[in-house]
Amino acid sequence: MLKTTTRLAAQMFAGAVVMPNLSAPIDTFEAMERYRTQIQALSRDFEPIVALFLNEKTEGEIKKHADRAFVVKLYPSGVTTNAFGGVVSLDEYGALFGLMEERGDMLLVHGETNGEALVREEEFAPIYERLAKTYPKLKIVMEHISTEVLANLLDKRKNLYATITLHHLLFTLDDLLGGRLNPHLFCKPIVKTAADRAALRRLAFSAHEKVMFGSDSAPHYRGDKECASAAAGIFSAPVLLPELTRLFVEHSSVERLQCFVSQNAQRVYNLSLPQKKVTIEDVPQTVEIECGGIVPMLAGELLAYRVAED
Amino acid sequence: MLKTTTRLAAQMFAGAVVMPNLSAPIDTFEAMERYRTQIQALSRDFEPIVALFLNEKTEGEIKKHADRAFVVKLYPSGVTTNAFGGVVSLDEYGALFGLMEERGDMLLVHGETNGEALVREEEFAPIYERLAKTYPKLKIVMEHISTEVLANLLDKRKNLYATITLHHLLFTLDDLLGGRLNPHLFCKPIVKTAADRAALRRLAFSAHEKVMFGSDSAPHYRGDKECASAAAGIFSAPVLLPELTRLFVEHSSVERLQCFVSQNAQRVYNLSLPQKKVTIEDVPQTVEIECGGIVPMLAGELLAYRVAED
Repeated sequence: MLKTTTRLAAQMFAGAVVMPNLSAPIDTFEAMERYRTQIQALSRDFEPIVALFLNEKTEGEIKKHADRAFVVKLYPSGVTTNAFGGVVSLDEYGALFGLMEERGDMLLVHGETNGEALVREEEFAPIYERLAKTYPKLKIVMEHISTEVLANLLDKRKNLYATITLHHLLFTLDDLLGGRLNPHLFCKPIVKTAADRAALRRLAFSAHEKVMFGSDSAPHYRGDKECASAAAGIFSAPVLLPELTRLFVEHSSVERLQCFVSQNAQRVYNLSLPQKKVTIEDVPQTVEIECGGIVPMLAGELLAYRVAED
Repeated sequence: MLKTTTRLAAQMFAGAVVMPNLSAPIDTFEAMERYRTQIQALSRDFEPIVALFLNEKTEGEIKKHADRAFVVKLYPSGVTTNAFGGVVSLDEYGALFGLMEERGDMLLVHGETNGEALVREEEFAPIYERLAKTYPKLKIVMEHISTEVLANLLDKRKNLYATITLHHLLFTLDDLLGGRLNPHLFCKPIVKTAADRAALRRLAFSAHEKVMFGSDSAPHYRGDKECASAAAGIFSAPVLLPELTRLFVEHSSVERLQCFVSQNAQRVYNLSLPQKKVTIEDVPQTVEIECGGIVPMLAGELLAYRVAED
């Protein structure tokens, strides 16, 4: 699976934040380094920025490495795939957040409560506000925002940032379950209403300086999706740049696509990745039905654009 | 499939309203009679009340049979399985509704608009109100209500009735998609919030005199549910009375179960079905994993009650 996803990511991007919610969470410096090495062995031309799974080990791990900045991912316990070892109470992590703020580490957050599915994200809004206010110099990234409520929160606090996925820009709850039910559009946070999508689109198409593209592409084998108990996660990796291009072109925003997918994130993360040129051509392509056992988003559909071969 | 469903229905009930949204809709008197005969051939001990699919043929069909009352089912076009031949504009059916009112026919309604999935039913509320007001003697049944909005509508108009399913009494959206995604709990209307379920439970547990149990049990083969594009419909037939019993017992309402599942409907429909005695025993049973290729609701789970063998 890692081979498939790395190949696709490296085809389109110079680097990416790699999330740590594997079945064995990436929660030590050693595991991070091992995962990074593993990914780099699969593609020399790609920089993985591995996030550290926030748990009781985190403070010790970052203290051991005073010389480098960490990207730490906070999952409330149980809110998504492999998040059962996540955080139960934020109160226990005050010292860690204070330390991270001092050090200049970044805090990425899957911002959902354990409330009812469609309001979990908006219920998390006051938690974001409190975190941002208590640690005003800690850069907090609201990952894969899906609601107008969080879109509106972005400008209330200087240290709040956000990522938006392609699927939350494209789809609403009606695409998941309004007609027949499509498990390949099932993810956490759930895709929401047309009004929510419109709010996300406004941020993306304007390339708001605190907003970054984050694919949240999550591979699951077909049998784990087309079954009686499907895993959450959309595998968008094969279609990301072609579909982003189409969407931004259709909304007269293509000149801001580069900021949205690349420059904003490099500035927020303070990165300087090696330059990489990717050409998108308006040549139609049909999305594969399956990539290495995984059914991609828009499988079998005809896209207007494709990534040109090197 | 008809064999499986008829056997299960006849095991627990003296009769049932049989819905006409087959792949070839039951939209003529002849088709109704044929379907009724077919079902009765499978069980002598069961009275199917076949509803007529409302379309442009309906007025002609009921005029040809002045001597009998019809039960007509209105599907807005495309809102559920096999409903593409349904009603596009209610305005075209004024004459029919007036005629049905005079004759004493009943109008059953799948009350959803073509709006966003979670608000389709509440958007239909003003349509119910207008229908009920315009044809004050027409008995209108709001089928399988799923929201507090429709629960509250019931007492506003004398000629509005409602049915409630077992699955809308048991489940919320979180059971469908709050953790992993369960296509066997996917139906139209979609199961809603805990507050909606609470409103339905209040009506059911009090056996409100205008509320009837309606299973809306809808069989689909496993391959049409555990796939990339799952059909809407929950197959609850194997567990109906055992689970209703448990639920009513747990909510200290078991003395009102008989009204909810049987007496209210017989009074509203003005029926006198042959008496049938069904014994429910508190003997645990495990729900079958599959019945004739169909995965039932609660497949493989242990129920507290079972229907006693004859």
